Amino acid sequence: MGVNSYSNSRVEHLACNNNGSNNNMKIQAEIQMPPLEIHKVRLPPERTTLQKLRHRLSEIFFPDDPLHRFKNQTCLMKLLLALQYFFPIFQWAPHYNLSLLRSDIISGLTIASLAIPQGISYAKFANLPPILGLYSSFVPPLIYSLLGSSRHLGVGPVSIASLVMGSMLSETVSFSQDPILYLKLAFTATFFAGLFQSSLGILRLGFVIDFLSKATLVGFMAGAAIIVSLQQLKGLLGIVHFTNKMQITPVLISVFKQRDEWSWQNLLLGFSFLLFLLTTRHISLKKPKLFWVSAAAPLTSVILSTIFVFILRNKTHKIAIIGELPKGLNPPSSNMLYFNGPYLALAIKTGLVTGILSLTEGIAVGRTFAALKNYQVDGNKEMMAIGLMNIAGSCSSCYVTTGSFSRSAVNYNAGAQTAVSNIIMASAVLVTLLFLMPLFYYTPNVVLAAIIITAVVGLIDYQGAYKLWKVDKLDFLACLCSFFGVWFISVPLGLGIAVAISVFKILLHVSRPNTLVLGNIPGTPIFHSLNQYREALRIPSFVILAVESPIYFANSTYLQERILRWVREEEERVKANNESTLKCIILDMTAVTAIDTSGIDTLYELRKVLDKRSLQLVLANPVGNVMEKLHQSNILDSFGLKGVYLSVGEAVADISSSWKAQP
Amino acid sequence: MGVNSYSNSRVEHLACNNNGSNNNMKIQAEIQMPPLEIHKVRLPPERTTLQKLRHRLSEIFFPDDPLHRFKNQTCLMKLLLALQYFFPIFQWAPHYNLSLLRSDIISGLTIASLAIPQGISYAKFANLPPILGLYSSFVPPLIYSLLGSSRHLGVGPVSIASLVMGSMLSETVSFSQDPILYLKLAFTATFFAGLFQSSLGILRLGFVIDFLSKATLVGFMAGAAIIVSLQQLKGLLGIVHFTNKMQITPVLISVFKQRDEWSWQNLLLGFSFLLFLLTTRHISLKKPKLFWVSAAAPLTSVILSTIFVFILRNKTHKIAIIGELPKGLNPPSSNMLYFNGPYLALAIKTGLVTGILSLTEGIAVGRTFAALKNYQVDGNKEMMAIGLMNIAGSCSSCYVTTGSFSRSAVNYNAGAQTAVSNIIMASAVLVTLLFLMPLFYYTPNVVLAAIIITAVVGLIDYQGAYKLWKVDKLDFLACLCSFFGVWFISVPLGLGIAVAISVFKILLHVSRPNTLVLGNIPGTPIFHSLNQYREALRIPSFVILAVESPIYFANSTYLQERILRWVREEEERVKANNESTLKCIILDMTAVTAIDTSGIDTLYELRKVLDKRSLQLVLANPVGNVMEKLHQSNILDSFGLKGVYLSVGEAVADISSSWKAQP
Repeated sequence: MGVNSYSNSRVEHLACNNNGSNNNMKIQAEIQMPPLEIHKVRLPPERTTLQKLRHRLSEIFFPDDPLHRFKNQTCLMKLLLALQYFFPIFQWAPHYNLSLLRSDIISGLTIASLAIPQGISYAKFANLPPILGLYSSFVPPLIYSLLGSSRHLGVGPVSIASLVMGSMLSETVSFSQDPILYLKLAFTATFFAGLFQSSLGILRLGFVIDFLSKATLVGFMAGAAIIVSLQQLKGLLGIVHFTNKMQITPVLISVFKQRDEWSWQNLLLGFSFLLFLLTTRHISLKKPKLFWVSAAAPLTSVILSTIFVFILRNKTHKIAIIGELPKGLNPPSSNMLYFNGPYLALAIKTGLVTGILSLTEGIAVGRTFAALKNYQVDGNKEMMAIGLMNIAGSCSSCYVTTGSFSRSAVNYNAGAQTAVSNIIMASAVLVTLLFLMPLFYYTPNVVLAAIIITAVVGLIDYQGAYKLWKVDKLDFLACLCSFFGVWFISVPLGLGIAVAISVFKILLHVSRPNTLVLGNIPGTPIFHSLNQYREALRIPSFVILAVESPIYFANSTYLQERILRWVREEEERVKANNESTLKCIILDMTAVTAIDTSGIDTLYELRKVLDKRSLQLVLANPVGNVMEKLHQSNILDSFGLKGVYLSVGEAVADISSSWKAQP
Repeated sequence: MGVNSYSNSRVEHLACNNNGSNNNMKIQAEIQMPPLEIHKVRLPPERTTLQKLRHRLSEIFFPDDPLHRFKNQTCLMKLLLALQYFFPIFQWAPHYNLSLLRSDIISGLTIASLAIPQGISYAKFANLPPILGLYSSFVPPLIYSLLGSSRHLGVGPVSIASLVMGSMLSETVSFSQDPILYLKLAFTATFFAGLFQSSLGILRLGFVIDFLSKATLVGFMAGAAIIVSLQQLKGLLGIVHFTNKMQITPVLISVFKQRDEWSWQNLLLGFSFLLFLLTTRHISLKKPKLFWVSAAAPLTSVILSTIFVFILRNKTHKIAIIGELPKGLNPPSSNMLYFNGPYLALAIKTGLVTGILSLTEGIAVGRTFAALKNYQVDGNKEMMAIGLMNIAGSCSSCYVTTGSFSRSAVNYNAGAQTAVSNIIMASAVLVTLLFLMPLFYYTPNVVLAAIIITAVVGLIDYQGAYKLWKVDKLDFLACLCSFFGVWFISVPLGLGIAVAISVFKILLHVSRPNTLVLGNIPGTPIFHSLNQYREALRIPSFVILAVESPIYFANSTYLQERILRWVREEEERVKANNESTLKCIILDMTAVTAIDTSGIDTLYELRKVLDKRSLQLVLANPVGNVMEKLHQSNILDSFGLKGVYLSVGEAVADISSSWKAQP
């Protein structure tokens, strides 16, 4: 509608040369362009089907050309390069020195101080025993340091994947009623997550995770963060009987129905530590140099609160504590994998969802920090590394891990140089597992709840959401849908709806593409949208249309109708203004980047219909593969020699001069 | 790969101006273009969110601007136009005259002679009693003649929808074991098909059927035709015990296992009529003027075979006959609709699949004949008409009907002028139902099988499949998948797979878009693909890249990596040839028809990364809505005043002159 009303208001610009009644109108009977020779539209060089297929497949699966390093190398060198490719540790280990080690030790210990309380908290989050969080901070980082290509990724359990695993498994199986089955399912889900991740990497299908758009993730993380924070009310208020469900309504009902279980001691302790943690977070956000304030805060909180509870241990029975944690290293868990039985489908589903979510986070975080230090992270290789570390994790009592945003940020800020910082962190966790477990006996659950809330509050990116609203309303809609989907339906379904909206957006763009009316920008041979450029002028007797999309089965009918409507409207306008009658329609094909058989049929039909109305249809600037297909389908014969031009300018110049030659 | 090797072979064209060692190379240090003024890239006129939304929605739902007729009309006229809009009969009825009636009577009687045997055969096809085929050729055509906008559509049951309904229902419910339930489900499926069709029309979601691409349909129809023909072996061979399944293996097993049930009488009768029908079909195909030969053949076959069997009635017990058909009009069936119970989901699913298939056929057929006579068929209105006629049908003992290709072709060839030919056909069917039913008592089933085979053989479009192979390999793959999917899996799943492949093709195109290196075509300010135009020349110190797709979340990571790879390869090439070093990357945004927030972030990232390597990134010709979004997101500030140009030519001219000013 906007376009139409605008076009009508542009009448004063329009040309009018066959009728002298409107002398005050600007006239542009010819475009101001030197009478250049007309160039031929070329076909791209011929290639066999096999060559085309090879080219297409290499663009799909190997866009990064991973073999370019191996070109012109000796056999030995190739072997070494391959080794370095699969184990990036061989790339940097030869150049490793003491000064790098010093930086890595500092950053490794810093992330360990964050990782230990975080591990314990996140495991609770997935309704798993806290010790699993520590196990998961030990084996996976070691494996990643061998295989991963990022130098700053801090590996361990993350909030989103923990939350999703907890919510998906708890809806069917309760940890308190059948802890062994729950553990089995968690390890199996981790195994499938790893298998899925590494196969995506091996099959080079990394683009699958691209379909989780940023908009979807903003909404999803905000929704999940709020749900998780509400879940933590259980710990903060000290409620004993709490719902297993993750949706917002049952959680709120649970909180307010059990008001008699609220304990003020818990509440006081929880909120004071929450305040402390949020303050340190605020400080670090304001002054990035003080990043260590928020990095050290969780461990400080755990130590302070444990000492506090230990001192008051005879007076505060109302404060729930972690209790006994088993000492010792990760026990093997490959015997716990669950490959047949009624819950297998649930385990696979949970594995897929947590796998794709953790992969998205891991890759995005890896890319972010690599961009800051100007090195490349290979998406497909990262997938293999993360996948393998999860498969190994599932056999050593770990649950889903990935590159965590908070750990990586702290790692980066603390000056990490290589993946050795992950090894240092794992060693610190090892010492904790072997010797320090009894110290956590009196750690109150409420402080873990406070740590979790602080962590997830950072996931609510309201500025990001506002930017989405400002720039792209459909993106914002996808964001809202995943937000409310997570709130009211369920975590995986909310995510599914958001992905569907993102894909729908693409399909909508393809099935209802833009068409523009172009005009000439005076003094140039350039043709641009009349709507965008006020100075652009129509050429009498021509309608120049640009189709802004490939012409596919999904839009060919629409485009045919839309183009005919433009012609109809133009004819009505020309009639109303007494201008020279329409004789030629030029389709600018620059943005028609592909065409299929339906599209070719549409062009053919269109030409036939316009021919019956004695209107000429001409194509301008078909790109290589479109030209190739037009040629293959023999449709060019029906367009004749003068039916395809290199540019709109040449088409207009040539056709108008041919009219002058034979009026 | 093709592009790379080709680019390398183009070295002789390349410019080289800061190093004199390769004097035999062609030099193009500047593009040959008059030093024009630099034009500003404009934003499209500002619109509020509401205006944009309105425009977008009107483009999505009302691309045909259905209200343009109502502009500037009086109230009374508007009412009349609305009446004409909803009941097209009011459009042509006032001008109806005797000569039109004469044509319509001839064509109506001609299609009736086809419709009666076809109706009986197709109903058997859907495992329904033959009489339902006649019922379905009576009520729906009457309703369509009131509501439909096509003048040539012959309405009635069609082979594909009958086949799909039969196969989907028979997999679960057997007609011979529970005929009432089967009938109930068939009417209910018809009801849901109609409901689905009319709601698509009312909600103006007609583009849903566009996702059934021609390629998919070619494969689907060929697969279905072969399956149906094999099913007819039951009738042709006279087998009594036959499988219910539709897949190819159980059918073939059934045929060869029951070899003792084969009857040579059946076989002989069947094949002689099959030969007769195929011959008449061949004659009509060769000489379109003799269309009536194939149109009259089914009725002739029915009459001849009935007489033949009647004469030999005491000698041929082995030939199965139709037997008694109830006389009288369609009994009401609204009491047979089945709205709760265990089979409701099956009925809805069958309704959806048959609904969408019959809709696709009906609309495509309507559009084909409208194009031949140069009038418009409104897709959304047709959907309402077809939907309402099916809803009415489901209450009057009809099953799914639509515009049939064979009937419409005969109708068109017989000179139909308006929808009155449908009324005439319905009247002929009425007379048959009331008085002529006993005549069909001795009609042998085998002749119906022969009619069906002749009908479906025409659906195998091997020429279409060959064209797909020649023009578009992925389209051909979709075609093959639906073909084999129907053969080996099941009809709806085969169709589903084919649609998924078509959609996947779109998503693949979006997630792995083309990027081209552009060069200048000497003597013009035009820049085109170096690969497509051998005469195009590189500009020293520049890389000019065209992105051939919107920049979306689904491709933003890929594009970033791919563009950086182009830059890397170009730097290596420049180094190898001792040319002037790379200083500027120009992104031609002409074909970037949309951008989302991820895309904007990518441009920002790309600029940052290239900045660190002291390479300038410049955008050329961003289209209206992309420019708008770049502006809204404030990313243009980071590009600076000189970061966006109207065309590649202007960008190259301006930037190289600025280098000369300050070397």
